[in-house]
Amino acid sequence: MKTFKNPPRTQWAELLSRPRQTKETVDTTVSGIFEDVRQNGDTAISRYTTIFDGVEVKDPRVTAGEIQAASQALPPSLKAAIKQAKAAIEQFHLAQRSEVVKVYTAEGVCCWQEKRPIQKVGLYIPGGTAPLFSTVLMLAVPAQLAGCQEIVLVSPPDRLGKIHPAILYAAGLCGVTTVLAMGGIQAIAGLTFGTSSCPQVYKIFGPGNQFVTAAKQLATRYGVAIDMPAGPSELLVLADQTARPDFIAADLLSQAEHGADSQVILLSTAAGISEAVAQEISSQLQVLPRKEIAAKALENSKSIQVKDKETALELVNVYGPEHLILCTDDNDFYKEGLINAGSVFIGNYSPESAGDYASGTNHTLPTNGYSKAYSGVNLDAFLKAISFQEISEEGILNIGPAIETMAEAEGLQAHKNAVSIRLKNLQID
Amino acid sequence: MKTFKNPPRTQWAELLSRPRQTKETVDTTVSGIFEDVRQNGDTAISRYTTIFDGVEVKDPRVTAGEIQAASQALPPSLKAAIKQAKAAIEQFHLAQRSEVVKVYTAEGVCCWQEKRPIQKVGLYIPGGTAPLFSTVLMLAVPAQLAGCQEIVLVSPPDRLGKIHPAILYAAGLCGVTTVLAMGGIQAIAGLTFGTSSCPQVYKIFGPGNQFVTAAKQLATRYGVAIDMPAGPSELLVLADQTARPDFIAADLLSQAEHGADSQVILLSTAAGISEAVAQEISSQLQVLPRKEIAAKALENSKSIQVKDKETALELVNVYGPEHLILCTDDNDFYKEGLINAGSVFIGNYSPESAGDYASGTNHTLPTNGYSKAYSGVNLDAFLKAISFQEISEEGILNIGPAIETMAEAEGLQAHKNAVSIRLKNLQID
Repeated sequence: MKTFKNPPRTQWAELLSRPRQTKETVDTTVSGIFEDVRQNGDTAISRYTTIFDGVEVKDPRVTAGEIQAASQALPPSLKAAIKQAKAAIEQFHLAQRSEVVKVYTAEGVCCWQEKRPIQKVGLYIPGGTAPLFSTVLMLAVPAQLAGCQEIVLVSPPDRLGKIHPAILYAAGLCGVTTVLAMGGIQAIAGLTFGTSSCPQVYKIFGPGNQFVTAAKQLATRYGVAIDMPAGPSELLVLADQTARPDFIAADLLSQAEHGADSQVILLSTAAGISEAVAQEISSQLQVLPRKEIAAKALENSKSIQVKDKETALELVNVYGPEHLILCTDDNDFYKEGLINAGSVFIGNYSPESAGDYASGTNHTLPTNGYSKAYSGVNLDAFLKAISFQEISEEGILNIGPAIETMAEAEGLQAHKNAVSIRLKNLQID
Repeated sequence: MKTFKNPPRTQWAELLSRPRQTKETVDTTVSGIFEDVRQNGDTAISRYTTIFDGVEVKDPRVTAGEIQAASQALPPSLKAAIKQAKAAIEQFHLAQRSEVVKVYTAEGVCCWQEKRPIQKVGLYIPGGTAPLFSTVLMLAVPAQLAGCQEIVLVSPPDRLGKIHPAILYAAGLCGVTTVLAMGGIQAIAGLTFGTSSCPQVYKIFGPGNQFVTAAKQLATRYGVAIDMPAGPSELLVLADQTARPDFIAADLLSQAEHGADSQVILLSTAAGISEAVAQEISSQLQVLPRKEIAAKALENSKSIQVKDKETALELVNVYGPEHLILCTDDNDFYKEGLINAGSVFIGNYSPESAGDYASGTNHTLPTNGYSKAYSGVNLDAFLKAISFQEISEEGILNIGPAIETMAEAEGLQAHKNAVSIRLKNLQID
C-alpha cells in the first residue's frame, strides 16, 4: 500500500482516481456479437460459446432434472448455509415494501403511486474459477419477492458445458424459471433480442467483466433496462485508534482477493494505524490461496491519513466507495454525514464479507463512484411505479382553470380543450 | 384513425408496434459532439449553439437579475397557475418519502436502508415553439424536495439567445441553482464532462428529441446516470359505453398535437364508440391551431375494438402505454390487473392534461413500452439508497459460520478469514 499523510484537497482527485477502461475496442466487439445474435439467434450464441468458453453446448437449457441432481451433489452444510443466507436476504428485502399512500392534492383530486413487478428479468451470473452462487441469492430472492413472472438466469458453462451445482441449487431454491448455460456478450444479446432457447427480458441484472458491462449498456439502446454499470469491486475502511489492525487487514485482503484491479483504501484519522495494518497484512497474506491476486491489488491500493473527522468524511463522500467499513469511536458522525456509498459496515464485528453472503443486505452494489447516482440492487429494482389519478367533477372544477392557463401559455390548445370541454359540460348541468 | 375489430393475438405485435428510430446515423453525430465538448468545453458548446440554434451566445449563464426580470414579464394569472401546480406536485411527491425500517435478520445483526439525495443533477428542458415550463416544475420540484445540492437547468436559447421567461420563472420558484442557455447534444455533453460555465452532474433528467436521447444514453458510458430513455409521447384511451365520445376525442387530440409521431390508441369493448369518437374528432380538429400536426399523428393512430374486458386488459399490458385513460363501468378491474403503464387517469373527469400540469403526478413518464421496466420520474429518482449493517459480537457468532461455509465454497479464502479472525477472537475471550 502506498501511504499518504494529509494530502491536500487539490490532490484528492488524482489520489482517488479509478482505473480507466478502454471503451472503444470493447464497443466494436460488443456491437458485432449483438448484430450476429439478433440475426442468427441460438446458432450465433452457440458459436460464441465455443469460441469464448471452449465448449460446444448443443442446448443451453438446463433441465429440472439437472437442477434436482445439483441439490444431491452439494454437502448438507453448504445447503444449510445457503438457506440461512436466503432467509436473511428475504427478511431484509421484504422490509423494503412500500405502502400505497393516497393524496388529495385538491378537493376531488386523488393521486397515488402503486408498484408492479417487472414481468421478465434476466440475471447474469459470472462464471470463472469461483461459482458465485451468492449472487444468485442476491438477485433471485428480490426478483421472486417482487413477483417477477419470468426469472431467466444465464451463466457461462464450464469446460464440460455445465453450470456449477451450487449455482443450480440456489436457482432452484429461489424460483428461477429458466436457467441457460450461456455467458458473456452473447448471453446479454440473447436476453435483449430473445432466441428460441432464451426468452427476451425487460431488465438485466448482475455483475460481469468489462465486456458484459458494455453489452448491458448496449442493451439499453434496444429498450432493455439494466440494474447499473459495473466496475471493479472496492472497499474503503475508515479507522481510528479504536479499530483492530488485524481485523482491518483481513477485511482489506478479502477485498483485494477479488481481482488485481480491486480498489482498496485505508483511511485513518490517527497516527500508527497504517503501519500496524501493513504489518498484519504481510503476515496474513502469506497463507492465502489467492495471494498473488491480492498482492497485485494491494500494490495499487492506498493508505491515507487525514487530520480530523470532518476531512475523513469529506474524502469518503468525494470517493463514494462501494463498501465502507466504519471502525471509529464516533460512527454516528460518519453515518449521519454520509452521502455517497453503496453498503456500510459499522463496528469491529461487521466485516464486509457478512454483506457479501449472509447479513441480508444486497451485495450487488454501485462501484466506480456510481454510488453518487445509483442505489445498489434492492426490491425496488425489480418493481416499477405507476402513478394514478382519479378526479371528480368537483376536482376538475378546482384545478381545471390552472390547467387551461398553463396549457395556453405552452401553446397547447388541445390540452386546454380537454379540460374546457369538461368544465363547459359541468357549467351547463 | 385506422379501425380494427377483434384483431387476433398474432397481429397484436404488428398492430401495437412503435415507429423505429434510426440509431446509427444519430450515434455518429452524438459521439463527435461529445468528443469536441470534452476537449474544448465552452468553446465547442458555443460553436454548436451557433450552428443548431442559430444564435451566438457569449456566456450561457443566466443571471439572478434575468430570473427576477422574468417574473415581472409574466401575467399574474399564469404565475398563480404555476404556483398552484407547484403546490400539488410538492404534495404528491412529498408523500413518496419512505421511512427507515431497521430489520434484525438474526440476533445481533441489524440491517437497514437509508436514502440520500443525488448531490448534482442536470435538468434538460427542450426549446422549440412551446416553452415547457411545466417540465421545469416536474423535475425541479422533486429535486428540491429530495435535497439535491446543485440543480443545473439547461435549455436551448431562442433566436435572441434567451430562455423563455416562464421557464426562468419556474426555475427561480423551484430552487434551481444554475440556469444555462444551451441545448441539444452539446448541453448533455457539457453536463457529462463539465465546462467552465457548466457544472458536471451525476444524473441527467428530462425529455428531448432523438439526438438528446442518444446523447443521454452516451452519457451513461461516462458514468452519468439518466432518468430513462425518451420516445414520442403516447396515449391509450380504454372506453366502453359509459365513456363520453366528446371527452375522448378531446383527450386523443391533446395527445396528437404533441407531434406527428405521437402515438394515439382508442381501445373499446363496445360497438359504436369508435365511430362516435371519430365524428367528434373531425369536428374538434378544425378549430385547433396545431391541427396539421394532430391530423398527421391521427393518420398513424388506431382504434381497436375487442370482445371483452379480459382481452382489453391483456392488450393494455402488452402495449404498456405512457398514459392510460380508463373510462369504463369497471375501472377497478383494469386498475387491479394493470401491470404496464406510466400514468393512469381514471374516470370521465380525469383528462390526461391534468397530469401534464396540475394534478400533482409527474409528467416525465416512460414511453415506447419502457413502462415494462421503468418508473416515471418520482422522488426516488433523485435519491439513492445506501444499505447499512451493524453486527454485534453475538451477531457474528450467529451468522459467521454460514459466511465461512459459503466463502469457502466460492473459493474466496480471504472472505472467510475476515470472519474467522473475529470468531477466533471471541472464542479466546
